[in-house]
Amino acid sequence: MKKSFLLLILPALTSCALVKGDTGNNEIRDDECNLPSELSNEIRSYEGIANKIINSLIYGKYKGGTYKELAKFVDKFGARVSGTENLENAIDYVQDLMKTHGLENIHGEEVTVPHWVRYKTLQMMLQPRRTNLPVLGLGGSISTSDEGLEAEAIVVNTFDQLKSDNVSKLVKGKIVVFNEDWTSYGGSVQYRSHGGTEAAKLGAVAALIRSVTPFSMRTLHTGWQDYEDNVTQIPTASITKEDAQMLQRYQDRGQKIVIKLNLNYMRYNDSISRNSVGEIIGSSVPQKVVLVSGHIDSWDVGVGAMDDGGGAFISWYALAVLNGLGLRAKRTLRTVLWTAEEEGLIGWSAYNESHFNELENFTFVMESDEGTFTPLGIEYAAGIKGGCIIQEIVKLLAPINATQAVYGSSVGSDISPWTSSLIPGASLLNANERYFWFHHSMADTMDVLDPDNLDKATAVWAVVSYIIADLTEEFPRERDESTKNTKAKLVFYPRRT
Amino acid sequence: MKKSFLLLILPALTSCALVKGDTGNNEIRDDECNLPSELSNEIRSYEGIANKIINSLIYGKYKGGTYKELAKFVDKFGARVSGTENLENAIDYVQDLMKTHGLENIHGEEVTVPHWVRYKTLQMMLQPRRTNLPVLGLGGSISTSDEGLEAEAIVVNTFDQLKSDNVSKLVKGKIVVFNEDWTSYGGSVQYRSHGGTEAAKLGAVAALIRSVTPFSMRTLHTGWQDYEDNVTQIPTASITKEDAQMLQRYQDRGQKIVIKLNLNYMRYNDSISRNSVGEIIGSSVPQKVVLVSGHIDSWDVGVGAMDDGGGAFISWYALAVLNGLGLRAKRTLRTVLWTAEEEGLIGWSAYNESHFNELENFTFVMESDEGTFTPLGIEYAAGIKGGCIIQEIVKLLAPINATQAVYGSSVGSDISPWTSSLIPGASLLNANERYFWFHHSMADTMDVLDPDNLDKATAVWAVVSYIIADLTEEFPRERDESTKNTKAKLVFYPRRT
Repeated sequence: MKKSFLLLILPALTSCALVKGDTGNNEIRDDECNLPSELSNEIRSYEGIANKIINSLIYGKYKGGTYKELAKFVDKFGARVSGTENLENAIDYVQDLMKTHGLENIHGEEVTVPHWVRYKTLQMMLQPRRTNLPVLGLGGSISTSDEGLEAEAIVVNTFDQLKSDNVSKLVKGKIVVFNEDWTSYGGSVQYRSHGGTEAAKLGAVAALIRSVTPFSMRTLHTGWQDYEDNVTQIPTASITKEDAQMLQRYQDRGQKIVIKLNLNYMRYNDSISRNSVGEIIGSSVPQKVVLVSGHIDSWDVGVGAMDDGGGAFISWYALAVLNGLGLRAKRTLRTVLWTAEEEGLIGWSAYNESHFNELENFTFVMESDEGTFTPLGIEYAAGIKGGCIIQEIVKLLAPINATQAVYGSSVGSDISPWTSSLIPGASLLNANERYFWFHHSMADTMDVLDPDNLDKATAVWAVVSYIIADLTEEFPRERDESTKNTKAKLVFYPRRT
Repeated sequence: MKKSFLLLILPALTSCALVKGDTGNNEIRDDECNLPSELSNEIRSYEGIANKIINSLIYGKYKGGTYKELAKFVDKFGARVSGTENLENAIDYVQDLMKTHGLENIHGEEVTVPHWVRYKTLQMMLQPRRTNLPVLGLGGSISTSDEGLEAEAIVVNTFDQLKSDNVSKLVKGKIVVFNEDWTSYGGSVQYRSHGGTEAAKLGAVAALIRSVTPFSMRTLHTGWQDYEDNVTQIPTASITKEDAQMLQRYQDRGQKIVIKLNLNYMRYNDSISRNSVGEIIGSSVPQKVVLVSGHIDSWDVGVGAMDDGGGAFISWYALAVLNGLGLRAKRTLRTVLWTAEEEGLIGWSAYNESHFNELENFTFVMESDEGTFTPLGIEYAAGIKGGCIIQEIVKLLAPINATQAVYGSSVGSDISPWTSSLIPGASLLNANERYFWFHHSMADTMDVLDPDNLDKATAVWAVVSYIIADLTEEFPRERDESTKNTKAKLVFYPRRT
């Protein structure tokens, strides 16, 4: 997932991914729920269907299916980067999979996407010790000149420190190394997103940003970075936590640091990609939509098995399972596999624009882009009544111990502009404490994932989406008091340029 | 540390590093101890000295000193590989440090060591998907030819599977990929040590061995590998756990795997290195020695901060602290920083040969080469009485919660041939569950270590070595019943060729 875009357009959303343990007091107390008994009873009446779905995934014909299909997919395509032919082939492949599994109305919807490519990079620390200093370019970065650049480095921990009187005057002509502490993803990612620009404002020639992660095995993490209008663009790259700390120690000892960088990237013309759509058309109110999603694109390091292969595959596979079990809900279940999420929710943004008039028919939107580790339940953005409905539904997930329902002010990544404004929605609550260990790194592989957990995640996804799509009563749009001030406005988010 | 050498010469030692949690029932029950009261009382009388040592490290002038010196050292020299000038410069530097801190009889003892260098390697999976496939040559491996080699790969999980009728006939002309499960270091490292040779016996052209680790972030781990006389030598390298698993999946699906390897290494002529020695000469029985050690050399990836910078630095620094506090024991305290441990205990082997006649005077030998994470106490190789003495001594480490005394049949890495035969000895018991995450990888950096833990480890080392060197009674050599059969023989281990 890519969150810095949201930081730009939605400053309120800095909470970012809900990592288990952050939940605090976001669970509704039982005495706050007062659902009409016919509604509670109706939800409970789905127990048989929920068990059928769960059993088919945990013991039956779909056991291991999500992992197996995802492994075949990532083993075949590897990384799937916006703008590449490989991503488009992967999109064709997954649409074929939807076809094989009997989904309806399968199609792609075109999106103009960026195309940024990393070529060979060379980097070396020259002083105080001559050694290779692994770096990894940040998405969208410009290259150095062909000869590369060689400059003294200065290490800072925070933007405030960078801008302080005694540091800011030393920056000109130097490489700024941001050795920011990990606080949370939302807190630390600002250095990746804006470090280059802030350093350039003071005359820096390049910026190296400590990889945004709570744990490192000398691991490099990439991610999109943003330039600012009217500020000189300088090359940016991440370095490992360990090397940032080493540079910090050199500086603290008064040792001069000299680094040589030769970074080669290319930003090609934008090209055309596609969001992929498949449906189980609703039996009685087909115009009403429950949207189930993840993003199909990935970063170029690793193979995007976790971010967001897992989320994308539990999404379309949930529909495949429902279809295979002959379950057609009253409303339409629509899976959307977003493209070019990593460059700033580009696929979602185009979809939001072209489907803007349909949004009032979106009953519920779901996205899994924060891991598919052991599923714990659902993180939802909805009012009290909606929360109580979710709480009632997740009780049916007791056989797989995924009965938690936790409120989040904004859920999902692509869908977060919707869920933070008006459309109720959900993300997969899972034991994702290690999510950012692997995020945007070469360690994002199938080994992060577990077949049983993926089965359970698909079960959560299928049960929750099906019941919401099939309930007699439309899922309530209203938010609770604390978020009431945002509820009236269906915000239109302009496409990113 | 390097253990495969031991597997060759001492098959009984496959237990290898004691990782916390393996201890089982290796603690002596209180009712098994029956130390003479004067001995117990004498040990207890060291409480004031123990507290003085501990306080100087936890609150006083030596607080943070071990970490600070080690960080300066690894930041200055980086990796310290057998045969390189850099290692020799590092050895000079650490001998100067000993001098600065007032140790006595400081000198180097020459050792002939191997010199194997890794040059640029290229590797690529060509089928079923064209992608980079990171590999890391194993120490001592030969190169491919200049043009490299391109061959089909076959994946096996065990030696038994390799040698089975239906697999062995398929090996000829192929690259054998060992995708062995992690069991323990001792269990899995055999594939790194002997995989190339076993594959070559069946006509393989190269061997890729899954990195020996319980946890991977797509991390490559190197280590020494052994060729066998009269078996064709083939190039060997490690691959990541994740990629081994991917190759396994391809094979399980019946997909053909083709890999291109161009591995460039050079085995130069042996050169001269040195074990580094420093002492606090004993006040009344200087000929008796308590040896406190770690190894100064490292692998070429990472900077050898954990393996074994930590062990080496707590060893000489323990003596520096004792000397700084004016503590001179009755017996001589001798720190030895071994060279070329990673290539097969080369430094120890030479030392063992040249000091063979002095070994009878070795009261106790200590080595820390299994991590300097949170210290828990002491792992010792000694008989019941020796164990009871250790148990009494570690009670004095209560202020730093390092009061465990655990029996191991062989402790240390370099010193293990001694401790597994007759000479009693000890290793640092520490919370090293993650040791093999970093071992022999680029992730072995200062970030693995913690200043407070190093202070505590130095305190354990200083207190235990000082008391054993100062006790009126000589530390008993006899082993308990279970190991009695090994006790009579002071084995001479021939130098490795």
